[in-house]
Amino acid sequence: MTRLTALALPLIALALAPTAARADVVARAASPDGHITLTISLDGEGRPSYAVQRNGKPLIADSRLGFMFTDAPKIERNLTLADSKQASSDTSWTQPWGEWSRIRDHHNELTLVFREKGDLQREMDVTFRLFDDGVAFRYSLPDQANLHHANIAEELTQFAFAQGGTAWWKPAYGWNREEYLYNRTPLDAVGTAQTVMTVKLADGTHVALHEAALVDYAGMNLARAEGNTFRADLTPGAGAPKVSRDAGFSTPWRTIAVADDAAGLYMNHMILNLNEPNKLGDVSWIKPGKFVGVWWNMIKGEWSWARGPKHGATTANVRRYIDFAAASGIPAVLVEGWNVGWDGNWFGNGKDMNFSQPTEDFDADGLAVYARSKGVTLIGHHETGGSASHYDGQLDTAFKWAADHGEQVVKTGYVTDAGQIERVDADGAKHREWHEGQWMVNHYLRVVQTAAKYHVSIDSHEPVKDTGLRRTYPNWVAREGGRGMEYNAWVGGKNPPEHEANLVFTQLLGGPMDFTPGVLSLSGSEGSTIHSTIAKQLALYVVLYSPVVMAADTPENYAKYPGPFQFIKDVPTDWSDTRALNGEVGDYVTIARKAKGSDDWYLGAVGDEQARSSKVTLDFLDAGRSYTAEIYRDGPGADYRTEGRHAIVIEKKQVKKGDVLSLDLAPGGGQAIRFVASGGKRKR
Amino acid sequence: MTRLTALALPLIALALAPTAARADVVARAASPDGHITLTISLDGEGRPSYAVQRNGKPLIADSRLGFMFTDAPKIERNLTLADSKQASSDTSWTQPWGEWSRIRDHHNELTLVFREKGDLQREMDVTFRLFDDGVAFRYSLPDQANLHHANIAEELTQFAFAQGGTAWWKPAYGWNREEYLYNRTPLDAVGTAQTVMTVKLADGTHVALHEAALVDYAGMNLARAEGNTFRADLTPGAGAPKVSRDAGFSTPWRTIAVADDAAGLYMNHMILNLNEPNKLGDVSWIKPGKFVGVWWNMIKGEWSWARGPKHGATTANVRRYIDFAAASGIPAVLVEGWNVGWDGNWFGNGKDMNFSQPTEDFDADGLAVYARSKGVTLIGHHETGGSASHYDGQLDTAFKWAADHGEQVVKTGYVTDAGQIERVDADGAKHREWHEGQWMVNHYLRVVQTAAKYHVSIDSHEPVKDTGLRRTYPNWVAREGGRGMEYNAWVGGKNPPEHEANLVFTQLLGGPMDFTPGVLSLSGSEGSTIHSTIAKQLALYVVLYSPVVMAADTPENYAKYPGPFQFIKDVPTDWSDTRALNGEVGDYVTIARKAKGSDDWYLGAVGDEQARSSKVTLDFLDAGRSYTAEIYRDGPGADYRTEGRHAIVIEKKQVKKGDVLSLDLAPGGGQAIRFVASGGKRKR
Repeated sequence: MTRLTALALPLIALALAPTAARADVVARAASPDGHITLTISLDGEGRPSYAVQRNGKPLIADSRLGFMFTDAPKIERNLTLADSKQASSDTSWTQPWGEWSRIRDHHNELTLVFREKGDLQREMDVTFRLFDDGVAFRYSLPDQANLHHANIAEELTQFAFAQGGTAWWKPAYGWNREEYLYNRTPLDAVGTAQTVMTVKLADGTHVALHEAALVDYAGMNLARAEGNTFRADLTPGAGAPKVSRDAGFSTPWRTIAVADDAAGLYMNHMILNLNEPNKLGDVSWIKPGKFVGVWWNMIKGEWSWARGPKHGATTANVRRYIDFAAASGIPAVLVEGWNVGWDGNWFGNGKDMNFSQPTEDFDADGLAVYARSKGVTLIGHHETGGSASHYDGQLDTAFKWAADHGEQVVKTGYVTDAGQIERVDADGAKHREWHEGQWMVNHYLRVVQTAAKYHVSIDSHEPVKDTGLRRTYPNWVAREGGRGMEYNAWVGGKNPPEHEANLVFTQLLGGPMDFTPGVLSLSGSEGSTIHSTIAKQLALYVVLYSPVVMAADTPENYAKYPGPFQFIKDVPTDWSDTRALNGEVGDYVTIARKAKGSDDWYLGAVGDEQARSSKVTLDFLDAGRSYTAEIYRDGPGADYRTEGRHAIVIEKKQVKKGDVLSLDLAPGGGQAIRFVASGGKRKR
Repeated sequence: MTRLTALALPLIALALAPTAARADVVARAASPDGHITLTISLDGEGRPSYAVQRNGKPLIADSRLGFMFTDAPKIERNLTLADSKQASSDTSWTQPWGEWSRIRDHHNELTLVFREKGDLQREMDVTFRLFDDGVAFRYSLPDQANLHHANIAEELTQFAFAQGGTAWWKPAYGWNREEYLYNRTPLDAVGTAQTVMTVKLADGTHVALHEAALVDYAGMNLARAEGNTFRADLTPGAGAPKVSRDAGFSTPWRTIAVADDAAGLYMNHMILNLNEPNKLGDVSWIKPGKFVGVWWNMIKGEWSWARGPKHGATTANVRRYIDFAAASGIPAVLVEGWNVGWDGNWFGNGKDMNFSQPTEDFDADGLAVYARSKGVTLIGHHETGGSASHYDGQLDTAFKWAADHGEQVVKTGYVTDAGQIERVDADGAKHREWHEGQWMVNHYLRVVQTAAKYHVSIDSHEPVKDTGLRRTYPNWVAREGGRGMEYNAWVGGKNPPEHEANLVFTQLLGGPMDFTPGVLSLSGSEGSTIHSTIAKQLALYVVLYSPVVMAADTPENYAKYPGPFQFIKDVPTDWSDTRALNGEVGDYVTIARKAKGSDDWYLGAVGDEQARSSKVTLDFLDAGRSYTAEIYRDGPGADYRTEGRHAIVIEKKQVKKGDVLSLDLAPGGGQAIRFVASGGKRKR
């Protein structure tokens, strides 16, 4: 049907006939290197769409844009392109901590001003940023005559993949928040997915869908409509609109990262670049580092959070952990169950929690002094049981108390089922919220901002997903938000060997995860074993980036494995450079990182349930320099299914740039290497 | 992990470890013939689930039950089985109109009373009904101390298919309401589906998921979580809870129909049986029947709804249609565009619509008299453009006006995009609602109930889905809710030949659809052709059941096809018996029906894009009786892709019970047969 005859048809046909609407391209843009291009179209009914091409080939087919509101007609049809603006930018900035010291932000920008033709004449702006390795866009709704406040029922954003492929994803809206194993399915067999969702398209191109700078908005999930087409599915809240905002705001960035391979995806900096710069000023008080803690014994069921004969957070136990940390050169000790509020049923109910009242068997003041004397800090713990308003009421008191006791980091928790966060109104009315709904997105940030006032950093558990806000609030150092080591404590439901090779290319594309690796005993409760070798436990310190990272096993167990434990003592948590050397999602990954303030490099490689050999060329090392490679590799017979899981070989080797190393990973195995630069600076 | 050790573990492990919770069967039930069995389980965390087996084989694996609320903790965990009741029932009842006169309702019932162990002690009841051909269940939330009002955020019902298969489904939450073509995908490639969703499992078992008696609740969609597991996904409204009800109510029934084959699914009566009996008393005023109308020329773009030179609903045009109807023995004439309100942009905006003010060129009073003199009634038309509150304000006036003008049926319309229904509060605040949200579910029923007061029947377009409420409100005679003939008027987006063989086994399992068949000219706008043969157009009158069914083509076109038109004149719209003789979803279907008050049978067979031959045995005919089969079959060279689409052979043949007929369907073809019983009663 030609455009002319379509317009000649009566409105009913225009409105209902699905193919009456042919799209015309109204704007174009390209990435700095020209490899990624963007086309913006308007169809015969005035519906805008975007499409993305890479190397001349369709990557994202025409995908709609717009909003539904609970109290106004949607913005989606009858739009004209009123204006458009182009810009370019090439800057670099420095991270206070992270995988890379310097980050380059090189992009072209296209801003489109759409305006409705009808009575309302509303304006919707969409800004696209094109990087050489991806495209991002966000909406802006200016304050205007017919839109002073936006009650958003749904965002009408589509992502229509132009070809099929394989997707790695975890479901949204399950009872269990973010803690699902990753599904690996055909792209057209995804249900409703959380982001990050990672896709390997039929032609091998890798794409990761996510969002950046999630602030005062609902988290976005991806609901597959039909075929390979997804639509934004904003997380609900207890209130009617999923998002309620005064007009004059921008949404989070919707991000489409693209690479030739999985390793390429890991090297993408879009998420950080799309966030606002540091708003906290001097952040020298933020201290990345390792920690041990009163935790694994609780997870295993041997100690308790609650008071009583099994209480873990006693003065004596914590003193012992402080001693162990100090002796090991580990700067911090996490203590869970130190405060009043754990004695009842705290799952989904944290209303007894008092975040500045220690239990009587925990000498907080004395331990603070003792820890300081040992050069160690305590990491506080605030478990809310999902009673977020209850926590809100204590924030200032709690963080002041934490700071007064020398705590530089607080681990928060929101252990309750999805959709069961309790919000209490000013008038006492109770509401049930989702972990990633707008209200909780604001709550998590409120906690981080309050903590910053007291120079405390936050490690959020049961958190909102990471959308790169660590750039803006560098004291948001880490989070959980996935299945960490705790699942390996339990007899059922252990993480499979491929789990970490999934995480690196999905969740960790969003930012650091507090996975709590390093269980060298490889044992959980009731004699159950972890699906890992010892060498893999070490490799996780390099592979799974977090500025605060636990040595999760107990002092007693570490005493049994002094050789491997040396790597945990050596490995830093802050890096000046990072290289993903190879990888396939869910199969294996090898990452090399350069210690900040040092010339040493570290390498971690993890696999899945299969043995795997690969060769890596040590291109990343400095030229003309000799390194001692301290290698921790799976020993003969190593296998996560047998007692061989403990088999490890620790050896040294002289290497230099350009050398080729063979990495032989056992089933469930891994390899960790420290490259000590001769004459180089050393830093823990 | 044994139950004992699970309980000995600290709460955190219980709460988080996914397999710590082993389920114990706490109740069982079986269908009357024992072939379908039900098991109810409670896991270690007190979460109830149901599972369904058929012939000893798992059909639905353990699937969760429960509710989330916006203002209270969910009901899902920590439940005990406080009580259970069993009952049996075997009754029959008579339909005032329908596919069958008598319907048998034979089932066993199991009611479970779950009660929370914690502080709230809330009770949730679930009632299962087991039929020989399916299982249904609904929740009841009694009024109780800690639950006087339910603000339901989501229903936590799961449907976990125990095996994979193929699904036929259309997506929920698209812009275009229900009017999508059916997807045929692997079960584990469904996105979020509307119901009816029909599944052919790997072992050949056919299952249809739907709901019955959707009253004062939100319509249920099916969101696939992972694999073959679906969860209820209630349609949102503008308000925060998806459903808001005072406690002391029951939800709609969630239905799982089961059969060995597609034809068996069609013979299922669960949906009707699960609805309340007729609440309208004497319904002899409800008149099934055929109609012609001022419609197809508008859909094709030759006439207009709006006033002006192309206005279709003029006195002269309608008189001509009345004459044609009377001459053809067709009892009714639909008129669209007869009233004031169409002149502006009425798509999504029906606020100019006045349902008791005809346009000046439509002599409503005179035409009512003229129609009556010809033994014909007019079918009114109320297009709301989605302005539902505006329509609410006119309901009584509008239906009184309709009744005063002799209208026995009114076709309603809600043409706007999904989620764009306008509701206006008492205080003037505007809200945007979904066609199947709770408020609109109530609106549609309010319209039907108001119409009943005036002895008017309702044919809803852009409706809520059919959940069998025709039993309770027999004046709700039909609805659209899918892609009907109108798509064939347009150059793009025509229905493919398989469309009707999809509809029969999906949407029409819910109830009658006003498809508007019978376009014998097989031509749409701009010379485009319909993907059908003439014989198929006739077969649709038997295959696609509706008590009110259109002869959709124009009088001028019917004059060109007097032979085939005879079948349209003959075929009734009310039946005493129906047999689905064969079929495969989306491929073909053959249905025989016995005319009510007559001994005549009719047969319709439609196929898809492929030629197909099948044999049917005339077992349904009365024994010892001779019938004249008036056969309308695809002629030599018939093919929907060529001019051969008009090739039809009309022939007569004497047949009797047990004879075998060959049905040879052309590509895009069909066959219609009238079996005239010798000496039998005749009734139109």
